[in-house]
Amino acid sequence: MTTGVRADARILGDLSEAEVILLFTDGASRPYPEVLVGNGDDAAVWQLRPKMAQVATTDGQVEGVHFTLDAPAHAIGRKLLAVNLSDLAAMGAEPRYALIAACLPRDLLVEIARDIGRGAREIAFEHRVHLIGGNVTRSPKGVVLHATLLGEVEPSKIMRRSGLYAGDRLLVSGTLGNARLGLRADVTHAVLKDALFDPVPRVGLGRALSASGLVRAACDVSDGLARDAVRLVEQDRLGAVLDLAALPLSAAAREVTAALGLDPQEIALLGGEDYELLVAVAPEDVEAAKDVARAEGETLTEIGVVSADPGLFSSNKVPLGKSGFEHFG
Amino acid sequence: MTTGVRADARILGDLSEAEVILLFTDGASRPYPEVLVGNGDDAAVWQLRPKMAQVATTDGQVEGVHFTLDAPAHAIGRKLLAVNLSDLAAMGAEPRYALIAACLPRDLLVEIARDIGRGAREIAFEHRVHLIGGNVTRSPKGVVLHATLLGEVEPSKIMRRSGLYAGDRLLVSGTLGNARLGLRADVTHAVLKDALFDPVPRVGLGRALSASGLVRAACDVSDGLARDAVRLVEQDRLGAVLDLAALPLSAAAREVTAALGLDPQEIALLGGEDYELLVAVAPEDVEAAKDVARAEGETLTEIGVVSADPGLFSSNKVPLGKSGFEHFG
Repeated sequence: MTTGVRADARILGDLSEAEVILLFTDGASRPYPEVLVGNGDDAAVWQLRPKMAQVATTDGQVEGVHFTLDAPAHAIGRKLLAVNLSDLAAMGAEPRYALIAACLPRDLLVEIARDIGRGAREIAFEHRVHLIGGNVTRSPKGVVLHATLLGEVEPSKIMRRSGLYAGDRLLVSGTLGNARLGLRADVTHAVLKDALFDPVPRVGLGRALSASGLVRAACDVSDGLARDAVRLVEQDRLGAVLDLAALPLSAAAREVTAALGLDPQEIALLGGEDYELLVAVAPEDVEAAKDVARAEGETLTEIGVVSADPGLFSSNKVPLGKSGFEHFG
Repeated sequence: MTTGVRADARILGDLSEAEVILLFTDGASRPYPEVLVGNGDDAAVWQLRPKMAQVATTDGQVEGVHFTLDAPAHAIGRKLLAVNLSDLAAMGAEPRYALIAACLPRDLLVEIARDIGRGAREIAFEHRVHLIGGNVTRSPKGVVLHATLLGEVEPSKIMRRSGLYAGDRLLVSGTLGNARLGLRADVTHAVLKDALFDPVPRVGLGRALSASGLVRAACDVSDGLARDAVRLVEQDRLGAVLDLAALPLSAAAREVTAALGLDPQEIALLGGEDYELLVAVAPEDVEAAKDVARAEGETLTEIGVVSADPGLFSSNKVPLGKSGFEHFG
């Protein structure tokens, strides 16, 4: 919305700590009967619904690693919760509560912090998640954001990363590789930039698949399909064979890979930040699982099969390695 | 333990992401019947005990703000959980689960990361807290650690920051000002350095006070007594009168303030990072509350009274302001 920094622009150093906290919490609290203590106390307290188990995950967004401040700040706040919502979706959980820990430099524009907070509240509201607590602290350099998402799941409906069998079919939601393409400076396609900046967590699909009882194992695809597929099967000491020609691509990704002379299958396979769901189902349940997705307005595409031999291979037996995003190596 | 960096010292950039995660999780998992899904999946899942409410808090430790890498790394890990345990203690909650989000630079020595992880596991074990999940990500600069602590409390036993009355007595646990003194370069006293680097959260005392039903309101003292006392009473639009001569000081703090010509009352009042509990009880319950503390091997000292007039004053009516630690101002 803004073009450049106004002369009267304020920085966080102009605000009190309480005012900085308000940038994140203002308007976040709504009446919620299960919440016994909300923002503003030492800790938040709520009551779990009967027969539900508690689910928790934490993930961050770090300036210079996951985003730069050239990105729309509002989308940074949305993505902070989206990446965690995606983890809950992969467990089949219903998201309920969020805590945000924001480490912010003193020279950050108030407007940027406010937009991050606004984006976080907005996606929280969309998923009926209550922003129940958090913490702000000064950062010597760069914006470091962490969120913890808490949800609930029926114990019998948990979708784990284990419990699959050789012969199970692998299905993935949506399309792959959009965010990887959106990351490129030479790509301007809005669909691909949106996929990068404002990913859509498959929360409704995760709940519906969990409720269906069809899924033997599930995870979200955040570090690239190749890496995450291995993680899904390796706990059971199994492998996977992927049909590269079947990997789902968006029209935008097909168009842009063709224009740039990139291999669309490689883009889809290595991807990263896809935030799609990867699930394993018995061969006889593939069509039923696709129907569940369809009823949610989503898609599931069959992309491979779980194999007794460890490792990741293409249908013509080429080893696919384990590439994908590595934070430190 | 180490003196300088060995020639063969490894940095995080030498490790895979999985190996970095292991620095935090290795040995952290123990059989825990309520835990349905532990580390290594998209999210952790556990079952709450019947009739308990869920309590959550998040707080961080940031290099250059809360610590430098000259501090013992093992203590940094302990303190990361201790500051959160203190928040749970102030609610009367029993700590149960922790998630750690670690944002670490590639050039960080593996040994430092391992010691941080070891310290976190150690204090978690001491408090029977299960390190149930977390996340590691690369930091462009500096170590940024956040922990989310989850606990349980009986809904009728929650100690909030509100619910007190004019005339209630204010009591504080332990002694004040030790960490503030420990922060000074000209202070080497081990008791004061320990208070700074390795604070002891009053978890058992918080549980016992909560169980006693004697406490009308409570908070932890983390940003200095002056600031936290105001926060405790202002939600009910009340004030507080503090008896500065009554503020509890350690022998080490008395000795060091005398030697350096500092005002011990001011040190205790402004403090910061004390991680003591500040509670309000009815006048007739003061002795009973002290007995509860004694039975836990802790102390509670009466330091003031809640007043109908807002603001913070000394017994001789001098306004005490709201000083203390401010992150941004």
